[in-house]
Amino acid sequence: MAAPALTNQQFRLAARPVGLPKDSDWEFHSEPVRDPADGEILVQVLYLSLDPAMRGWMNEGKSYIAPVGIGEVMRAGGIGRVIASKSPAFSAGDLVSGSVGVQRYWTGAANDRSAALRKIDPAVAPLPAHLNALGMPGMTAYFGLLEVGMPKPGETVVVSGAAGAVGQTVGQVAKHKGCRVVGIAGGKEKCDFVVRELGFDACIDYKNGTVKEGLKAHCPQGVDIYFDNVGGEILDAVLARINLKARIIICGAISQYNNTTPVKGPANYLSLLINRARMEGIVVFDYADRYSVGVSEMARWMKEGSLKTREDIVQGLENFPDALLMLFEGRNFGKLILQVAPE
Amino acid sequence: MAAPALTNQQFRLAARPVGLPKDSDWEFHSEPVRDPADGEILVQVLYLSLDPAMRGWMNEGKSYIAPVGIGEVMRAGGIGRVIASKSPAFSAGDLVSGSVGVQRYWTGAANDRSAALRKIDPAVAPLPAHLNALGMPGMTAYFGLLEVGMPKPGETVVVSGAAGAVGQTVGQVAKHKGCRVVGIAGGKEKCDFVVRELGFDACIDYKNGTVKEGLKAHCPQGVDIYFDNVGGEILDAVLARINLKARIIICGAISQYNNTTPVKGPANYLSLLINRARMEGIVVFDYADRYSVGVSEMARWMKEGSLKTREDIVQGLENFPDALLMLFEGRNFGKLILQVAPE
Repeated sequence: MAAPALTNQQFRLAARPVGLPKDSDWEFHSEPVRDPADGEILVQVLYLSLDPAMRGWMNEGKSYIAPVGIGEVMRAGGIGRVIASKSPAFSAGDLVSGSVGVQRYWTGAANDRSAALRKIDPAVAPLPAHLNALGMPGMTAYFGLLEVGMPKPGETVVVSGAAGAVGQTVGQVAKHKGCRVVGIAGGKEKCDFVVRELGFDACIDYKNGTVKEGLKAHCPQGVDIYFDNVGGEILDAVLARINLKARIIICGAISQYNNTTPVKGPANYLSLLINRARMEGIVVFDYADRYSVGVSEMARWMKEGSLKTREDIVQGLENFPDALLMLFEGRNFGKLILQVAPE
Repeated sequence: MAAPALTNQQFRLAARPVGLPKDSDWEFHSEPVRDPADGEILVQVLYLSLDPAMRGWMNEGKSYIAPVGIGEVMRAGGIGRVIASKSPAFSAGDLVSGSVGVQRYWTGAANDRSAALRKIDPAVAPLPAHLNALGMPGMTAYFGLLEVGMPKPGETVVVSGAAGAVGQTVGQVAKHKGCRVVGIAGGKEKCDFVVRELGFDACIDYKNGTVKEGLKAHCPQGVDIYFDNVGGEILDAVLARINLKARIIICGAISQYNNTTPVKGPANYLSLLINRARMEGIVVFDYADRYSVGVSEMARWMKEGSLKTREDIVQGLENFPDALLMLFEGRNFGKLILQVAPE
């Protein structure tokens, strides 16, 4: 079966950004969709996941994953529908999740390792949730908290970016494990959401008062686990309140990703010494062989109503450059997703 | 048995230092030695251990141990001889190790918890070694490396302050565990010592060339374990070279202890994320119930000649203020000890 005649549109990386990515860092490119060859499939992209980590992929230099090359399609995870298949692994109509890139169509080998496509079941949860709690952010939250944080009932867990994709799930998983959960988020609306909708015990609005005071008020027993998505001054404020044998999970540092000056290291890191505490990085890919465990437990919680998700869905591939900036300006409310085509 | 009429001399903390401790931060105090009451002993101090951690004890604020109070005798570990005892636990003539303070004589309960006196056996090693490899620095090195670092044969271990009390033992224990060991020290003499005398594989002279270049040259396989005694720019340089799943042991940060500006946090801490690496603090007291394990293994190595120690012994209690500064100016060569009285 040949694919229909279609035009692909892509955002390619035109230049390595200095600070926040600007329009000239992107090339909007059109080209005909390529028919799948033997063993290949053609996927129409429906949703793209926009994540803070994407900023890191745009930089040169050694990291946990190769940088996106200049002229290459920007890397992004997403969900799509198989519209043509020359592989026994997928059939037309299948819904798949994987690294499809910022474009309308993806053509490639069904078993392409960097795309890592897998079928998803729309009956389990709405498609956007497969990019949220049941996708990379959810897996990051689940395995980062449980494997690195090792929460025990009664412990106090603090999570920054609490209304964001990873943060919202971290807090809810921690509640499932019997912890006191305090979020940190920007603005009253987000704070109200994580407390009232997601069931966090408290939320500190970093835009209204200091995090230091908030921690003092809401973590009277100190902090046992801190799941850090933001870095910067908030990390330092939490370091000053950690308990003996605390665990700090370094998941991200969105406050530092667009720096044009050097990253601000945590001046209070000697609190690790005083408290015999640990700071450890997490990259979700390390848990790939156990995603199914996380997905099935979280899908069950979602069904039971004890795990909620919130997505912030922006329409239109052409809005990608601005949508990405929403993350760094805190303008998204919930997991940020770009809808490229109707379901 | 009453104690003989003796005069004690002490260094008391007169003021909390700003930056390097200066003479006016100390009060040199004389008072009659107090006779031991029932259950008490009188100890003549022979050697005092001078350690970077002492600078931290002089600061106000929460730490792993209460600060020394203004007007109190400066805290210090040391070795002394019991010269009068009204306790069945010790006899006159016993040699003891414990927190005796910067003074000539210590009188107190034989079971005083903060002094934590224990008998030592001079047949096992010369007395100064009981403040070095067989004392707190040795225990710090032994348990910090083994319990937090978890070295595996073939791994690369880097240690800063390599010629110092903790560093010299860290490197030799790591060699015993089959690791490649690279020291960082200041000056050719110290570097030659750790390589030629202690058997390190290499040593980077931070006063001659950059640590970055040294690490590149001497750690071609990257760094699996970094035992940090210094903090600052050296910590950042090592962070840039760590391997996947590296362990960074935060033992101290001598470069930062006398800062009058905020501590320099490690700007490269996101290398922990990229490499799923861990940074963890260690305080030796946590291993107190297992010191005997460390002491006996290290005493055996010393006897076999496979663990060497070097002490830098300064004479005279009255020289305490200047001797302490040697640590922060890198003027000591080996474990710094103040001899207060002849053996």
